[in-house]
Amino acid sequence: MHLGMIGLGRMGANMSRRLLKAGHQVVAHDRSPEAAQALVTDGATVALTLADLARQLPTPRAVWIMVPAQVVDATIDALAPHLAAGDLIIDGGNSHFQEDPKRAARLAASGIDYVDVGTSGGVWGLERGYCLMIGGSADAVARLDPIFRALAPDVGAAPRQSTAGEPAGAELGYLHCGASGAGHFVKMVHNAIEYGLMAAYAEGFNVMKHAPGYEFNLPAISELWRRGSVVGSWLLDLTAAALHQDPHLQAFAGQVGDSGEGRWTAHTAIDAAVPVPVLAAALFSRFSSRGEEEFANRLLSAMRNQFGGHVEAK
Amino acid sequence: MHLGMIGLGRMGANMSRRLLKAGHQVVAHDRSPEAAQALVTDGATVALTLADLARQLPTPRAVWIMVPAQVVDATIDALAPHLAAGDLIIDGGNSHFQEDPKRAARLAASGIDYVDVGTSGGVWGLERGYCLMIGGSADAVARLDPIFRALAPDVGAAPRQSTAGEPAGAELGYLHCGASGAGHFVKMVHNAIEYGLMAAYAEGFNVMKHAPGYEFNLPAISELWRRGSVVGSWLLDLTAAALHQDPHLQAFAGQVGDSGEGRWTAHTAIDAAVPVPVLAAALFSRFSSRGEEEFANRLLSAMRNQFGGHVEAK
Amino acid sequence: MHLGMIGLGRMGANMSRRLLKAGHQVVAHDRSPEAAQALVTDGATVALTLADLARQLPTPRAVWIMVPAQVVDATIDALAPHLAAGDLIIDGGNSHFQEDPKRAARLAASGIDYVDVGTSGGVWGLERGYCLMIGGSADAVARLDPIFRALAPDVGAAPRQSTAGEPAGAELGYLHCGASGAGHFVKMVHNAIEYGLMAAYAEGFNVMKHAPGYEFNLPAISELWRRGSVVGSWLLDLTAAALHQDPHLQAFAGQVGDSGEGRWTAHTAIDAAVPVPVLAAALFSRFSSRGEEEFANRLLSAMRNQFGGHVEAK
Amino acid sequence: MHLGMIGLGRMGANMSRRLLKAGHQVVAHDRSPEAAQALVTDGATVALTLADLARQLPTPRAVWIMVPAQVVDATIDALAPHLAAGDLIIDGGNSHFQEDPKRAARLAASGIDYVDVGTSGGVWGLERGYCLMIGGSADAVARLDPIFRALAPDVGAAPRQSTAGEPAGAELGYLHCGASGAGHFVKMVHNAIEYGLMAAYAEGFNVMKHAPGYEFNLPAISELWRRGSVVGSWLLDLTAAALHQDPHLQAFAGQVGDSGEGRWTAHTAIDAAVPVPVLAAALFSRFSSRGEEEFANRLLSAMRNQFGGHVEAK
Repeated sequence: MHLGMIGLGRMGANMSRRLLKAGHQVVAHDRSPEAAQALVTDGATVALTLADLARQLPTPRAVWIMVPAQVVDATIDALAPHLAAGDLIIDGGNSHFQEDPKRAARLAASGIDYVDVGTSGGVWGLERGYCLMIGGSADAVARLDPIFRALAPDVGAAPRQSTAGEPAGAELGYLHCGASGAGHFVKMVHNAIEYGLMAAYAEGFNVMKHAPGYEFNLPAISELWRRGSVVGSWLLDLTAAALHQDPHLQAFAGQVGDSGEGRWTAHTAIDAAVPVPVLAAALFSRFSSRGEEEFANRLLSAMRNQFGGHVEAK
Repeated sequence: MHLGMIGLGRMGANMSRRLLKAGHQVVAHDRSPEAAQALVTDGATVALTLADLARQLPTPRAVWIMVPAQVVDATIDALAPHLAAGDLIIDGGNSHFQEDPKRAARLAASGIDYVDVGTSGGVWGLERGYCLMIGGSADAVARLDPIFRALAPDVGAAPRQSTAGEPAGAELGYLHCGASGAGHFVKMVHNAIEYGLMAAYAEGFNVMKHAPGYEFNLPAISELWRRGSVVGSWLLDLTAAALHQDPHLQAFAGQVGDSGEGRWTAHTAIDAAVPVPVLAAALFSRFSSRGEEEFANRLLSAMRNQFGGHVEAK
Repeated sequence: MHLGMIGLGRMGANMSRRLLKAGHQVVAHDRSPEAAQALVTDGATVALTLADLARQLPTPRAVWIMVPAQVVDATIDALAPHLAAGDLIIDGGNSHFQEDPKRAARLAASGIDYVDVGTSGGVWGLERGYCLMIGGSADAVARLDPIFRALAPDVGAAPRQSTAGEPAGAELGYLHCGASGAGHFVKMVHNAIEYGLMAAYAEGFNVMKHAPGYEFNLPAISELWRRGSVVGSWLLDLTAAALHQDPHLQAFAGQVGDSGEGRWTAHTAIDAAVPVPVLAAALFSRFSSRGEEEFANRLLSAMRNQFGGHVEAK
Repeated sequence: MHLGMIGLGRMGANMSRRLLKAGHQVVAHDRSPEAAQALVTDGATVALTLADLARQLPTPRAVWIMVPAQVVDATIDALAPHLAAGDLIIDGGNSHFQEDPKRAARLAASGIDYVDVGTSGGVWGLERGYCLMIGGSADAVARLDPIFRALAPDVGAAPRQSTAGEPAGAELGYLHCGASGAGHFVKMVHNAIEYGLMAAYAEGFNVMKHAPGYEFNLPAISELWRRGSVVGSWLLDLTAAALHQDPHLQAFAGQVGDSGEGRWTAHTAIDAAVPVPVLAAALFSRFSSRGEEEFANRLLSAMRNQFGGHVEAK
């Protein structure tokens, strides 16, 4: 089918390529005309403006927005006037799930459908396929099925629970998770889990790094655990690749960024009184890695000096 | 080659079967003669006593001990008198790494080699192969290479970093990690990471379970994430299997056990001043799941009553 | 001076009494006329309606609202029509700090001043005085100085940093912390710290409760630490009182409530990327004490069963 | 009574002074003769050697050792040969509680009693008195009662639970907590609680330091909370003093030391399966303040780079 794609960064460009390979028609737009032009050899059509993009798509149109969370609303507002009743907008980025019902209601006033999609896969998605967590009305989601199927990995990406019956549902690598916002909610939790998993590995490797009396070969151990162990995972595969390339991780200073979902999951958990000690600890470690705990530490040293006369070690 | 196997529980029995399938000769012993007898159809020879086991093995002998950590020393002490200089004992269970150098020294006095192996793979190891983390002298470890190779998964269990050259080292699913204790050290950290990974998933699914306004299909979501997502892992595969079989997990009460390595990793990290907030939080959640925080909670309620007159909700 | 007091629960009633003792005139109102009537013997005047309350106060009026956070806005909306330009409303309850600037702006349209006050002291405030954290315009705060001074403890409640000069500022037990919302912000953090302090004691006593080989007299130890130790505090005084009255805390089940500020502090910290591992852990322990982690625990047991065949202990 | 005091650092010297003021006779010894000499004006007698110290004390002797934990055993071994059956050694430092029964048994062979005392009070103890947590046999502890009473604060240091009866037991600021090791056990937990309390304040002040839209006067707020609030404590008094002297804590870099008890409490809790999320988080924050999490953070950055192409911010 035809799909408009707005936002051709790492994610949007590769998703377009995967759709084109699967035989879909992509009308591609980006703030930077060069980014759109780069997709022409893959078979995309370039739209220099949003009006142009709307013109080039057959109705009812479907337009996928793949831009940073903070400019999604502005993009929707700029795009909607060029669309018509029956058209459909997908936000495939990392919006907060509470934004989705608001957007859906706003667009519904013009008869435009809105679908939220949490997209996992990173720079590997082009090759591996993207795991898609989808929220919105059943009708709108059903209409996009060919797109989702093309973007998602094949069922073969993991062994099936049972080989009886045709692969269906979540096995296909995409899932209609619920009403508007459900897709971004599930993606939000997904990323918080990701932070937790990453921290578990990082702390464990750090323990081995400081093992008293042993000098462990960390690249080899990360490679070892990829086969047959309980802790095997895709993140471990990536850890092994990183340690293979740079055994002492000298390319990194350890200032760890975070992109919103970890915080939102903590917020959501706290509002629902759900304890998330591991997920929150993983988040706080990232804040600390950026020096945000400094004043607290200085206050601790000051207290120790007050009651015990302790002088800070340098 | 020939291998004596002492301890034929879930792990020892399946490891024996995997070795037998690979063409090795296993002389099997267990406190329960039935357990040994059960392996005869797989090709094992039964030894009813340790003396018998020693008699049936060609010298230099190699004997793998696969028993609960708390009886390893007693088993070694009972076995050693039946062995001779040049023989070799492997402890493949979950001993504390600090026990290993002591055992190695004790056995060295009789000329017996000692190798510690951390074994991961659980009930799936028979089919998937066992990930083996090995500590001990290079000579002793080298001598056991055929055994390790047979127990470990094939290199094909995960994509290689580079297809250049023959598969070697950690790619084969087993690794000589260092001197005596190194195998159990790496396995200890492995299990602590396992606890952290498990807790990250568990907390995330709990957030979805309590999501305000959504009724998520958790079995489907666990299945979804297995393909193409950043959080894919073997533990997620098992989570999906568990939720597939019992969507509301009604078979479980939530009293979560722990088997030592999580605690030892925390001890080791604390002694080395390595922060492990995520690994420790995962451990403490298990303690709490068993009610161990109760008095602390009652004290909190008592304090709230004192300063604010708060009456505890029931 | 004259003060209207709306809300005569534990806090509002005792604050009225403390003001009356200090020679102020209090016009008291509560949904329950009996609550107001109960203050007559202390010297208060009863107002049966908000209109009545406004009528009985000389202009410019000052009215202190001491009601649950969720009904503050409704109370303000009901009260404001009875007030005039130049009057002043104080919210002394536990509102979220972000509500304050909105209320201040809303009331400013009618020329009414708004001051937010975080009030600590609990059921002991009548006797000890209340610690007051104040936000709002300098003029409005200054006008209430006699009220604040009467409610706050005397400077003698703690040794001065220096005896030079007259007691002033924060030494008097009340402080203008900043613009609108500043009072509730500081009170919010205050309560989060309170959770953290409480949890530190509770965990420590729980360790002693489970000490292997010792049977500690916890009431005696709590009493002991009140004199000369580094961990002496008012919360410890209360802990000692609680353990003195009920050494095994049999009156409590350990379902620990939380009242908003701990969550808001976590939210605020996360939004500002400030790590608060201790404050968040204290909060999560309260959630867990109420069983909110149950599904997570069942999932952990299910995973253990999957990979290791572990059967849950009962 | 007469007491030998070995170790005249900050703690030992001030404790000697407090004893001398109370009319006791102190025979003082330190590796540095100058340290002992400095106490002469306070009334102490100097012992240049341990033999000299033993000679100057009437039998049965009582000798208090106040030296770093790692040299206590060496000190005991050097001292014991100069003592006789019926004499008594007190370790008032921060030994691990498991050392105490071993020492007691060793000394019992020579008829020497051994008492372990956890001593809290820091540099303020001279003036405020020392809170003493005591372990050992009832007879030995009883014999030292005059010493304990002189070192401890007066009952007046905190309000009594009830004014009926003479002050007794823990009210006096010292307590026989149980058999050998009980004193150091209680002191160990005491210090872990101290870490937790300190971290709660430090995190809370850090939240205020980073409050969006407010510029809080942290010295004033710390002063404010000292009177009438729920979070008042001696550690808060010290925090206020520190912020009064150095409002931006410029004298400190935030490398926070730890002295053993926090670690031991975590070890003990873990061994007893007692969850201590707050106490452990406080400990880990100290490790992180010293850069011990660096490799973990670099690994996190490396993973983010692998799956998302994220480049680390500087």
